[in-house]
Amino acid sequence: MLRTHTCGELNKKNIGKEATLAGWVHKRRDHGELIFIDVRDAYGITQLVFDPKENRSMHEKAHELKSEYVIQVKGVVRERPAGTVNKKLPTGEIEVLAGALDILNPSLTPPFELDDALTVSDEARLKYRYIDLRRPNMQKNIRLRHKVNSFMRSFLEKNNFVEVETPILTRSTPEGARDYLVPSRLNPGKFYALPQSPQLFKQILMVSGLDRYFQIVRCFRDEDLRKDRQPEFTQLDLEMSFVTEDDIFELSEGLISGVFKAVSGIDIPTPFTRLKYAEAMERFGTDKPDGRFGMELTDLSGILKNTKFNIFKKTLEKGGTIRAINAKGYSKLSRSALDALIAKSKDYGAGGLAYLKCEKGKLSSNIDKFFEAGELDSIKEKAKAEEGDLILIVADKKAIALGVLGSLRLEIAKESNLIDENKVNLFWITDFPLFKRNDEENRWDSEHHPFTACKEEDAKLLDGKDLGRVRARSYDLVINGQEIASGSIRIHRRDLQEKIFKIIGLDKEEANRRFGFLMDAFQYGAPPHAGIAFGLDRFTTIFTKSVSIRDVIAFPKTQKAVCPMTGAPSDVDDKQLKELHIKKSK
Amino acid sequence: MLRTHTCGELNKKNIGKEATLAGWVHKRRDHGELIFIDVRDAYGITQLVFDPKENRSMHEKAHELKSEYVIQVKGVVRERPAGTVNKKLPTGEIEVLAGALDILNPSLTPPFELDDALTVSDEARLKYRYIDLRRPNMQKNIRLRHKVNSFMRSFLEKNNFVEVETPILTRSTPEGARDYLVPSRLNPGKFYALPQSPQLFKQILMVSGLDRYFQIVRCFRDEDLRKDRQPEFTQLDLEMSFVTEDDIFELSEGLISGVFKAVSGIDIPTPFTRLKYAEAMERFGTDKPDGRFGMELTDLSGILKNTKFNIFKKTLEKGGTIRAINAKGYSKLSRSALDALIAKSKDYGAGGLAYLKCEKGKLSSNIDKFFEAGELDSIKEKAKAEEGDLILIVADKKAIALGVLGSLRLEIAKESNLIDENKVNLFWITDFPLFKRNDEENRWDSEHHPFTACKEEDAKLLDGKDLGRVRARSYDLVINGQEIASGSIRIHRRDLQEKIFKIIGLDKEEANRRFGFLMDAFQYGAPPHAGIAFGLDRFTTIFTKSVSIRDVIAFPKTQKAVCPMTGAPSDVDDKQLKELHIKKSK
Repeated sequence: MLRTHTCGELNKKNIGKEATLAGWVHKRRDHGELIFIDVRDAYGITQLVFDPKENRSMHEKAHELKSEYVIQVKGVVRERPAGTVNKKLPTGEIEVLAGALDILNPSLTPPFELDDALTVSDEARLKYRYIDLRRPNMQKNIRLRHKVNSFMRSFLEKNNFVEVETPILTRSTPEGARDYLVPSRLNPGKFYALPQSPQLFKQILMVSGLDRYFQIVRCFRDEDLRKDRQPEFTQLDLEMSFVTEDDIFELSEGLISGVFKAVSGIDIPTPFTRLKYAEAMERFGTDKPDGRFGMELTDLSGILKNTKFNIFKKTLEKGGTIRAINAKGYSKLSRSALDALIAKSKDYGAGGLAYLKCEKGKLSSNIDKFFEAGELDSIKEKAKAEEGDLILIVADKKAIALGVLGSLRLEIAKESNLIDENKVNLFWITDFPLFKRNDEENRWDSEHHPFTACKEEDAKLLDGKDLGRVRARSYDLVINGQEIASGSIRIHRRDLQEKIFKIIGLDKEEANRRFGFLMDAFQYGAPPHAGIAFGLDRFTTIFTKSVSIRDVIAFPKTQKAVCPMTGAPSDVDDKQLKELHIKKSK
Repeated sequence: MLRTHTCGELNKKNIGKEATLAGWVHKRRDHGELIFIDVRDAYGITQLVFDPKENRSMHEKAHELKSEYVIQVKGVVRERPAGTVNKKLPTGEIEVLAGALDILNPSLTPPFELDDALTVSDEARLKYRYIDLRRPNMQKNIRLRHKVNSFMRSFLEKNNFVEVETPILTRSTPEGARDYLVPSRLNPGKFYALPQSPQLFKQILMVSGLDRYFQIVRCFRDEDLRKDRQPEFTQLDLEMSFVTEDDIFELSEGLISGVFKAVSGIDIPTPFTRLKYAEAMERFGTDKPDGRFGMELTDLSGILKNTKFNIFKKTLEKGGTIRAINAKGYSKLSRSALDALIAKSKDYGAGGLAYLKCEKGKLSSNIDKFFEAGELDSIKEKAKAEEGDLILIVADKKAIALGVLGSLRLEIAKESNLIDENKVNLFWITDFPLFKRNDEENRWDSEHHPFTACKEEDAKLLDGKDLGRVRARSYDLVINGQEIASGSIRIHRRDLQEKIFKIIGLDKEEANRRFGFLMDAFQYGAPPHAGIAFGLDRFTTIFTKSVSIRDVIAFPKTQKAVCPMTGAPSDVDDKQLKELHIKKSK
């Protein structure tokens, strides 16, 4: 080794001993004749002293040192003079009196300083990722991510799970998102696809009798990227045989509460709250509820069933609904701020947004005249409005009213700092619909994916018209308003699988072409099985309280799916394309 | 759970208790009225008894059961009658008297039986992988592979390594093997490549100050496949800063001997034998020597420096060499077997193969008349030939003579069962040449890869003509004649890296285009660093004493890079190609 100790290791016990350190010049301070260098490595910082009285040539050489030079220093550990002790550093009681100095590699001035507080453009951070990754927050995140993964692996191992690597070069079965394709050189005109998830392989592993599988695995989706999306992402994927929902919940709760406790010392009570999809929509206007604050949705339809206010009346007549949230303390909102809220609700899809201010003990607004006093009192009571509150009301189709208020609820909470960032709020969302209506293509799609089983009592509905009522045996884990995991009890019989494919519009031939091997496998002794997959990038983002998933991925891509450091994707030689039997099209 | 116990769990302690088991019908035996079912899951086998006197309807139902049906059975644990105890099974002292039987899923007759001894075609095994994976050997291999990975991870964690995930969608830098390419939808005409290894990223991580990185990672090479190659393969990749060769050796030896001890209970003495490339070639005719047996190569050039045998004489005059191996006990080889050996040496590239039988105390053959008695005695002595041995001699260019005899050595050892399969033989091979001559393209190539540093004392040779003499600071780990790991001390300075690129014929522009980011990074404080990568598929093959790497990979591909189960690679929709801005070429 080029060092005898790391830069985080030396302390009073080493006083008088020789040590060789290697690392980066973190800071240099010239104090009169003396030169102080803080040398940094992955483990800490140690103060070096170059004293011309001790070693003139080394002191000369120390004059050359600049930030981020890589050096090797041999010297003697000594106690820091009284008054210069740094209690914050584990090495703060000592310093190393430098004997020999070797510059292992000089450094240009870095494009930005290694200071977390500094705002650096995303482009620069990604282009000079080797500098960005030296910053304390990124170092912490990358190490924490490893600890999270490591805890998860050992937790699952203790629970008899076996990690199995599934292929990255696999078959294209576009489902929802687009596949990344890989042309085959050995099989002209054919393509591999990168897996959107190891779903089919993990089910096959259950058929093969493995009983408990997991994998921390890369997945790929060629989607238009948003802030929290990457072309490739990592999930903790697991599957179990002979289990029910409760087994998945119990295991997952042990896993998640375990990782919070082990890595961050945070106690998460179990079991997590379970919320049916329908209830989540009613109360929070979303299936990814953030329960760290209140402001839940209220149904005013009953109170206003005889309303004379024409817009509300018509909405109810057409089978719509009237929902409200109570924005606490928002009655003082300016006209322009109110207009902004109204504009936002229109962006979210509402026809309009009504409001009632609770001032001087009563509700008032530009529409209050349309309501009877009794109605206003009831609204106030239902919305639990107090002096200074603002009731926001959307009358629309149910899905729209819930969705819009759900979004406003979140917006207002963020704006008014209602969210305690130290809270960890978890929900299991269950009883999702198995299908969602695809009006554009006039058919039913799978809400989760087509391998999801339905509630046994709803199986009879599969032969009817009212497919929207069929409930799935699927479940999502939501942390702080973000979907962190998703899973289901799977179909394990060919007949049911065929029926589901038919319902979602895959004809028999197509279904066999794409998924025949899975349905074949179901005929050779497939056990009942279920699984779940945790989005580790997003989980680690929450876990590290990071702003973006890019802060927990060592080498992420931009929203254009580009890596500014390596320049991927790039031009390639025509010879390469020719060998792959493809051409660029215009 | 659909079970209270696994099928490997019940024993005498459970007698009299109720238990519910779930699993596969492994065997069924009808004994008079009684039906015995061995039910199997991932953990073991338990015997069920269906007795019509106890439960007539369940007994009826048990008549339906066939191999590989998935069942759930509730019953009472009881002691097996005297004389029917099976000491080999952990559950062999009990049986479960079946009360309720539920057929969870029937099974067609499997395409082959779950018997390791049975020869099944590779094609069938891969097509019905879910059946093949139920076979005891495959179950064992998959679980052992997990244990190997798991041990390695915790070993490295204990040694302060951090696992970091590097991108799968990255930049094409074809080096040696072909890249798998992925067309970019968002960046028309541009392509990602799947990584041949995370080499550049791990070096960047060292520049970022991570100090110790590892990753169990998928790598991709689009090569024409051989028996022990797969389009995607897994390596344990690691990199360390501020280290020398000895640190890599020590860590790797702890890792490898640790995994043998922890997972298989085998003691591997450390340190492993270190062998310089040149010596390995001289003694074994290969840089992947199998030291589980002798039969090392001998140099006869000195003894025969004045030979009158024209072919040998001319070889020596042209700067060639005369080498031999001693095939113990092979003097009785038939003429046709000898001819076969001669044909093989020609396949391996030799002009011919001479031989001398050691019979009746002297060496004889069709060429013995060309040698003087003294020469024959010296050959016999040098080759340590004893009665019944056969000396095989190749006179040729050195590389050919060594290569051919190295191959024959291995061939003969396998043929004559010289290899003790229970031995584990390890070598570090060091001091490789940095460059190899590419005569076809009249230039020098990197022997390892262009990021490898050279011996400091050889650095001055880089400016000369005799580049073949430059020795690399690279090392391979060879187990039982197979290269299991490969690594090097890396270049960490831009000037040296530029020089190497120039030597291997990458002009400055091209080098900057492809590797500019790495050379840039070297200018911002790159520490000295080194690493190694272990081929886990091949290692696990040796570790499990499997025949093929396909036996340690859950879902491998055929030699045509096809997955017979899923049908990957497959046709894709033209719409998909259009979105990716590519067309098939003819």
